[in-house]
Amino acid sequence: MRNIIDDIEIRAREELFINIHPIQPGGRLTPEAMKAMIAYGDGYSTCDWCRKPFRLDKIKRPPIEEFHIELAEFLGMDQARVVPGARRGFQAVVSSLVEKGDSVIVSSLAHYTEFLAVEDAGGIVKEVPLNEKNIVTAEATARKIEEVKKETGKLPKLIMIDHFDYMFGNEHDVYGIAKVAKEYDIPFLCNCAYSIGVMPINGKEIGADFLVGSGHKSFASPAPSGIVASTKEWADIVFRTTQMIGDVTKRKFGIKEVEMLGCTLMGANLIAMMASFPAIKERVKHWDEEVRKINYLMDEFLKIEGNKVLSEMPRKHTLTKVDTTESFDKIARTHKRRGFFFSDELRDRKIVGEFAGATRTWKLNTYGLTWDQIRYLAQAFQDIAKKYGINIIK
Amino acid sequence: MRNIIDDIEIRAREELFINIHPIQPGGRLTPEAMKAMIAYGDGYSTCDWCRKPFRLDKIKRPPIEEFHIELAEFLGMDQARVVPGARRGFQAVVSSLVEKGDSVIVSSLAHYTEFLAVEDAGGIVKEVPLNEKNIVTAEATARKIEEVKKETGKLPKLIMIDHFDYMFGNEHDVYGIAKVAKEYDIPFLCNCAYSIGVMPINGKEIGADFLVGSGHKSFASPAPSGIVASTKEWADIVFRTTQMIGDVTKRKFGIKEVEMLGCTLMGANLIAMMASFPAIKERVKHWDEEVRKINYLMDEFLKIEGNKVLSEMPRKHTLTKVDTTESFDKIARTHKRRGFFFSDELRDRKIVGEFAGATRTWKLNTYGLTWDQIRYLAQAFQDIAKKYGINIIK
Repeated sequence: MRNIIDDIEIRAREELFINIHPIQPGGRLTPEAMKAMIAYGDGYSTCDWCRKPFRLDKIKRPPIEEFHIELAEFLGMDQARVVPGARRGFQAVVSSLVEKGDSVIVSSLAHYTEFLAVEDAGGIVKEVPLNEKNIVTAEATARKIEEVKKETGKLPKLIMIDHFDYMFGNEHDVYGIAKVAKEYDIPFLCNCAYSIGVMPINGKEIGADFLVGSGHKSFASPAPSGIVASTKEWADIVFRTTQMIGDVTKRKFGIKEVEMLGCTLMGANLIAMMASFPAIKERVKHWDEEVRKINYLMDEFLKIEGNKVLSEMPRKHTLTKVDTTESFDKIARTHKRRGFFFSDELRDRKIVGEFAGATRTWKLNTYGLTWDQIRYLAQAFQDIAKKYGINIIK
Repeated sequence: MRNIIDDIEIRAREELFINIHPIQPGGRLTPEAMKAMIAYGDGYSTCDWCRKPFRLDKIKRPPIEEFHIELAEFLGMDQARVVPGARRGFQAVVSSLVEKGDSVIVSSLAHYTEFLAVEDAGGIVKEVPLNEKNIVTAEATARKIEEVKKETGKLPKLIMIDHFDYMFGNEHDVYGIAKVAKEYDIPFLCNCAYSIGVMPINGKEIGADFLVGSGHKSFASPAPSGIVASTKEWADIVFRTTQMIGDVTKRKFGIKEVEMLGCTLMGANLIAMMASFPAIKERVKHWDEEVRKINYLMDEFLKIEGNKVLSEMPRKHTLTKVDTTESFDKIARTHKRRGFFFSDELRDRKIVGEFAGATRTWKLNTYGLTWDQIRYLAQAFQDIAKKYGINIIK
């Protein structure tokens, strides 16, 4: 296969393999998004019909304004904006609400970008401990708020908890946490990077003040792309418009939103999100089938003696962490390829996306695989086990 | 032509028209960048071979690390990072250096995103007045610094001046301003959104502490994409790594850079920049030819009685502001289509990208047009003038 240019190879793993990479499946483009990439690839492609008031989310052709309105509706929120990745959504909210020295409640499984957003604003993260099942509960969140209050004399400025975490793909009690947040009158950002775009999400039902989603993680969109949505109560703060006036020219740029830095996610990335949106609206209705598939796979996976699932069971998400220390890692310890023997075996079976060389704890994600592919995967794991003399429990 | 889906039309103006849009020509994709869009469109496509230390700019396959090193070299800087647009470069630098109430020197022609970056950090913009030719000079910058010092009792924390501005495409004295910045020991960010990627730029020669560039404006790349580069003296500050520690888990994410929010510009947008890079290195060598073309066009344009060029002459940049109040606008005043008569005439000649309906002051950009297209454009303007009885000066 020839390269794109020089040593930039053509990426074709979605075409040639079954890809179980933990973070890639939800961001695989739809055919419509791919068309958008081709038609809108050129830099400022979304600016052809930009007219007053000269802001991305007000453009009518292509229907960017309509998309913003529908996106907010789809999420059960009042306002939505697109941003270059979920992290830029955290940044916008944290930068609006958090001052130097303020505390922000996060999960003990918070994504590192939540840490960075808080650090950038001069805040301090305060982690809610997990329960024995690696779940963040409402009770633990309330306890943490009390602790912070006692320790600092002030309430945290923001609660930012992941709906599903990046480590185990466990579901955390965001509905209960939203209630706690309301009791303390602390705004609640629900990080739905692993849920918006793959399952139905309604911010009003959750009771969140902000939702953040990821285009490249779960919305069949190119990177970077993401979503930040707000209730109308907070929209004026997070989407506040510029007040700065030039001291010499007296210039003002009134409609531009400070945290968005004006126009946010232009070009092909936005049009790809819009092009995938109809498919997204349809696919979230079939989340239960995706969950059935991962549970079937894990049932089969657990028939391999020594295998464990570290994520909560039964699975509620396709992202899953497993432990093969007592199965495949035993082989790796004496194999000349070490842990790569397992990657080799998977690759020979046209399966990629596990962390190459890892045979202790590792993650996989089956989102979007067909039942045939799921059954093939289950069989492949068992075949590899058999080949190396690992027992299959009937 | 069928739509991508629903009411998202296929964009084909680069294929079907001569596009003189002020901000689009430098961001037109190369064929290699288009291939990158297709091959790397899927969300987390750049993460296939992400290994320790797990940071985008350290990935070796595709050669992202090498690109970062070569990009810094190409710009005559020590360190470079990619970001989702030039604005995210301003934000990173300003957020690192500016505290609440601090002053930042900007041009009276500063782009609005510079205002927003300063506002987001709690700073205050202080504009350098223009000279009679709409140029920011070193002397005026020095005077402004003195004024700020006198008024606030403190030196500005940052000087941020555009190499070429967005309004006239005039060249400002960034070499002289860099010297002034050094004399006052104030860091200098040179905004090269209109120059990096179209002409040779060397940060060391300019004497800048930071360079910011735009992928979608001038680097033949999709939006959002941009560059922030630093000297080694400032790299540890702007690219500082996270210090935040989880209070419960004791987690640290040591190598992740706070202002970059970890990984920055992933996916197709980055690979497209990399794919365009060889063409960029070549095309900057031919900037003088681009300048010759716009000057030829403006000479012909000025033969239309009443036409003016508001940008500095002779042109040093392909982005140019013109004034047709005394020519085409005179026709518009009594034409039933008003200013749109001019857009109609251009469109009939397969020319797009002027601001539709504007016949007083408006901008155009001829970057990347062939000599044949330039001559055709010149002829088209004169033909329209003749058609409406406007005199052509021999």
